Amino acid sequence: MPGVGVIGYGYWGPNLVRNFMSDTAWRVVSVCDRSESRLAEVGRLYPTITTTRNPEDLFRNPSIDAIAIATPVATHFELAMAALRAGKHVLVEKPIASTSAQASQMIEKAAQRKLVLLVDHTFVFTGAVRKIRDVISDESFGELQYYDSTRVNLGLFQHDVNVMWDLAVHDLSIMDFVIGVSPVAVSATGLSHVRGQPANVAFMTLFFDRDIIAHINVSWLSPVKIRRTLVGGSKRMIVYDDLETSEKVKIYDKGITVTETPDDLRKLLISYRTGDLWSPKVNETEALKLEVAHFRNCIDGSEKPITPGERGLAIVRMLEAADKSMQKRGEAVELEA
Amino acid sequence: MPGVGVIGYGYWGPNLVRNFMSDTAWRVVSVCDRSESRLAEVGRLYPTITTTRNPEDLFRNPSIDAIAIATPVATHFELAMAALRAGKHVLVEKPIASTSAQASQMIEKAAQRKLVLLVDHTFVFTGAVRKIRDVISDESFGELQYYDSTRVNLGLFQHDVNVMWDLAVHDLSIMDFVIGVSPVAVSATGLSHVRGQPANVAFMTLFFDRDIIAHINVSWLSPVKIRRTLVGGSKRMIVYDDLETSEKVKIYDKGITVTETPDDLRKLLISYRTGDLWSPKVNETEALKLEVAHFRNCIDGSEKPITPGERGLAIVRMLEAADKSMQKRGEAVELEA
Amino acid sequence: MPGVGVIGYGYWGPNLVRNFMSDTAWRVVSVCDRSESRLAEVGRLYPTITTTRNPEDLFRNPSIDAIAIATPVATHFELAMAALRAGKHVLVEKPIASTSAQASQMIEKAAQRKLVLLVDHTFVFTGAVRKIRDVISDESFGELQYYDSTRVNLGLFQHDVNVMWDLAVHDLSIMDFVIGVSPVAVSATGLSHVRGQPANVAFMTLFFDRDIIAHINVSWLSPVKIRRTLVGGSKRMIVYDDLETSEKVKIYDKGITVTETPDDLRKLLISYRTGDLWSPKVNETEALKLEVAHFRNCIDGSEKPITPGERGLAIVRMLEAADKSMQKRGEAVELEA
Amino acid sequence: MPGVGVIGYGYWGPNLVRNFMSDTAWRVVSVCDRSESRLAEVGRLYPTITTTRNPEDLFRNPSIDAIAIATPVATHFELAMAALRAGKHVLVEKPIASTSAQASQMIEKAAQRKLVLLVDHTFVFTGAVRKIRDVISDESFGELQYYDSTRVNLGLFQHDVNVMWDLAVHDLSIMDFVIGVSPVAVSATGLSHVRGQPANVAFMTLFFDRDIIAHINVSWLSPVKIRRTLVGGSKRMIVYDDLETSEKVKIYDKGITVTETPDDLRKLLISYRTGDLWSPKVNETEALKLEVAHFRNCIDGSEKPITPGERGLAIVRMLEAADKSMQKRGEAVELEA
Repeated sequence: MPGVGVIGYGYWGPNLVRNFMSDTAWRVVSVCDRSESRLAEVGRLYPTITTTRNPEDLFRNPSIDAIAIATPVATHFELAMAALRAGKHVLVEKPIASTSAQASQMIEKAAQRKLVLLVDHTFVFTGAVRKIRDVISDESFGELQYYDSTRVNLGLFQHDVNVMWDLAVHDLSIMDFVIGVSPVAVSATGLSHVRGQPANVAFMTLFFDRDIIAHINVSWLSPVKIRRTLVGGSKRMIVYDDLETSEKVKIYDKGITVTETPDDLRKLLISYRTGDLWSPKVNETEALKLEVAHFRNCIDGSEKPITPGERGLAIVRMLEAADKSMQKRGEAVELEA
Repeated sequence: MPGVGVIGYGYWGPNLVRNFMSDTAWRVVSVCDRSESRLAEVGRLYPTITTTRNPEDLFRNPSIDAIAIATPVATHFELAMAALRAGKHVLVEKPIASTSAQASQMIEKAAQRKLVLLVDHTFVFTGAVRKIRDVISDESFGELQYYDSTRVNLGLFQHDVNVMWDLAVHDLSIMDFVIGVSPVAVSATGLSHVRGQPANVAFMTLFFDRDIIAHINVSWLSPVKIRRTLVGGSKRMIVYDDLETSEKVKIYDKGITVTETPDDLRKLLISYRTGDLWSPKVNETEALKLEVAHFRNCIDGSEKPITPGERGLAIVRMLEAADKSMQKRGEAVELEA
Repeated sequence: MPGVGVIGYGYWGPNLVRNFMSDTAWRVVSVCDRSESRLAEVGRLYPTITTTRNPEDLFRNPSIDAIAIATPVATHFELAMAALRAGKHVLVEKPIASTSAQASQMIEKAAQRKLVLLVDHTFVFTGAVRKIRDVISDESFGELQYYDSTRVNLGLFQHDVNVMWDLAVHDLSIMDFVIGVSPVAVSATGLSHVRGQPANVAFMTLFFDRDIIAHINVSWLSPVKIRRTLVGGSKRMIVYDDLETSEKVKIYDKGITVTETPDDLRKLLISYRTGDLWSPKVNETEALKLEVAHFRNCIDGSEKPITPGERGLAIVRMLEAADKSMQKRGEAVELEA
Repeated sequence: MPGVGVIGYGYWGPNLVRNFMSDTAWRVVSVCDRSESRLAEVGRLYPTITTTRNPEDLFRNPSIDAIAIATPVATHFELAMAALRAGKHVLVEKPIASTSAQASQMIEKAAQRKLVLLVDHTFVFTGAVRKIRDVISDESFGELQYYDSTRVNLGLFQHDVNVMWDLAVHDLSIMDFVIGVSPVAVSATGLSHVRGQPANVAFMTLFFDRDIIAHINVSWLSPVKIRRTLVGGSKRMIVYDDLETSEKVKIYDKGITVTETPDDLRKLLISYRTGDLWSPKVNETEALKLEVAHFRNCIDGSEKPITPGERGLAIVRMLEAADKSMQKRGEAVELEA
């Protein structure tokens, strides 16, 4: 039974620990955090787990096979590299690292040591996102046309990363998982309303090498919470509203039909198709529960990583390009193939 | 009692005629359209109105003081210029013209002939938009932070203009009316999913010379209809949902409070304020009813145009800049002061 | 081509006239109303229709084959009887009459004269209600369990009938059409908040001779408008929300499964089934358009009345029983078989 | 610092224990449940709490001053009486007991022993319900006109009590708290769809000695979850939707204005008033947190019980009357003054 250590017990760490604990095929060995009071809480809830303020204690602990990292982004690289060097498998919170260069090094190191490097793109493990991928992959969806996501609410302002690295990272990782094609360029705009702080409002457009367009609207400064994604196909369209308690995914039998007239191309006849709506029941298992099981299965070789370091790298490249574009007020920045 | 002639009896013209007819201080003299069947419908509904296929008949009719134009955009300039040259006041549908050069000439001609040139920015005459302007103008709103609008639905694809000239023109004219400041540059991206046709999906960002950002998301290819605008102020925030039958305008006592610590600017403390929600009753009078009355009052000099040709020109300049930016995949295009 | 005369041009009459006018197989001959100004409006909109304040003019007009009655309930009986005696087919607004005795006489007279007597249960002609009937009729729905409808809003208070005769009549006629079984008793409670006026809030329960229960909640005194009906079957359940612009009808693959244990009946195991949601596209043709065509087809014998006088009588019997029950604060009143 | 013991660790007990634990002025001494596995869970989460399967262990424990009872209704009386006899203060889950006779004895015993007997009408401790009480109590609300509540969802079917004792008990306790007047009679109807089991659908009407009416619609067999209450006043109206994450309470400046004409009372003029909507921010503190603190303050005498045994008795009387009425298909049953 593999042993796991968790670094970071702030916002996300407690969820990781709870899920590792409730997975009877994991052994939770140790939790590391800088805060004594948080460690005390770990001790109170889980008396069997040892705690420490020093991550080195985890790296050199032979009963720990895997490390989960849930610390601020800026520390991901250093902690993950140390863990990999110590021969530990790594699950790291999104975004995988602060730069694509760091992410590449992490991937290289994991490959070299034959270790699993998984990035915690949590939404990819939800029933809703998996259902969306199934729907898009099916022939009945037609050609993908657009992906348009809005993820806004009031707070929490981050001091170290802008709103794209905090919120759009979710949309990018979902998009990356469900559409199966990669963008070739990014245009982004945004603004900070607090002097000297990272942008708290941002709008991204992603270009592709075919007739697809993607758009992401993120904000920490909206009076209402919106978590809505529209995905258009030539035969079907999807509305994914993560705030719906039931009916998160709605599939519309809607679209346009273009009839070309050979004599006069300008006289294309566009007609509208409006049919039934279907909202499939989606698996409601907690995403993190599936994710910690998947991490285990990747380690024992029974599954291939769904969100390997490479996907983390791809997302970070999009975010870096978006940052550059935002500096230039929306000028498109190419993404490497 | 002024006499009015209406050119164009397609989608919008019937609304114009109906409202002019029900305003007892207007005399509806004549309607012009290219379609005989539409003119027959006018004759059936309003036996007192004369009909013609030739706009010249309206221009040379001395009992006509004003002309309302509800034809495709490409014809606005020619028809409006002819009307002005014939000494008629003009109300022209949005967008005012196909180019800013045309709009400028129209404005100049109207000024020269001392005639009223009003552009039909209909939403400006709704109770909801007027209430929003009041709320933003009030000191209690604080500093304007952002304007973010989504206007999407399935259809109707236009063949002569892209989705920004069809849908975003509404958002731009509302924004122009309610915020009282003008953008300095535009970034736009978009795509056409029908070969050879204008873009049917578009995303615009508008930049200002202060810490304001505006964003508009328009589409003819959405499975669901959304008409939602968020306007953020430093003290209050507005959600305007035009599809709500009641409660179109909601005002949130929400926002952030930034506390600066003199010693360490990076340690800004951002706290969140969440208070009551207030949804004021808004005037439900049909916008066009107020607009035709306003047109009359502008002609007799008792009111100053709320949506004069100059506002139409300002909007067309934004659309032109957006078109240029879209060609360059989002590169910002400056707007003249 | 049959000729029709319409009596009553208040709230509903204009809709009747408009639909008869746009049905090219009807000839609209004459409209009768007590108000000169309303008749003037008819003349303005439809110069070909004659108008009169005297219903007798319609009864003795040989070019009129059918009469549509859209007057206050108290006048339905007298007008319909006179029309039938004059040999005219009759379409009468809901409720068919003020008493079941009157309704019975109307039915008898129509049968005797071999004339069509149709009651205007408009909702029965909507695509939504027809879809609901199809769903309930299908084996996949299982056994009908309950019908629960809420129809509340602010206003319009009626002076001559209570809120059940004004609003619940819709729910009863929909229920009567879609479920295919008749209630055996009624319990009703309610209250008037305006001294001396009919009840403006009412709650009805309808009992059946099997395990079905129906409930209707109606009010003129609700701050929000609700038009929602839940229909439960042992295998599927329906939510019908008439205020939804799209997705009026939602069908849930939900329910309970009861497993009996032979040894201990009290230990029934009830498990819950939660599957997909499906919202079929429904026909959006205006109900009245279909209804006036149906009236024509009933007259020429090509269709059998969907809402004959007998259905009107059945609804009035339920309303009478409900009135009696309300007088006795909810004591159940039996309905005749 | 008072010591508390909790009996029952099924659905609700864990919430009680968690809240008592996080209130630093309470000492949680012991938890009693019949299930060893649940007690093991207590031990795992809270190593300092002793556990037992025998409630007597709690009654005779001198370090326990108060007992919280979260067991099936049928056991409330016996457990509460034993606790009171042992000199313990009692907090008992709703409904307080199976019969009004039992509730009366419990109240008497508590009074005799000068002990606190509090019934856990949880909603009374929510910010939303308290805000509603404030709004209704204020003169600006006008005269109370009606209270209409719907509380439906799919499951959980109870085997020992019908849906009124399970769900309507919440509405009755909220109503009892916010309106400040008591009903004089009850009419109830309902049905069981599972042979031999208690009613799973029920509709209650409550009559008052003035122009107020209350209605409650409860079901375990609805495909959708609804938690909505309308409260009408002559000047304002409230919509309380407990499923809204924000804006649970909406206050409408709506109503009717009745103008009497002295000459003809039947010609009352009813006009409709439609003004602003206001949704006040409500305290989001967990109700049970406030409730366990209140229990403490009742014990030390610093507060008077908000939900004393007497309120529990009042609700049980309404439920008993409703049961009787349901047996008689809605015949009204009087409530004792």
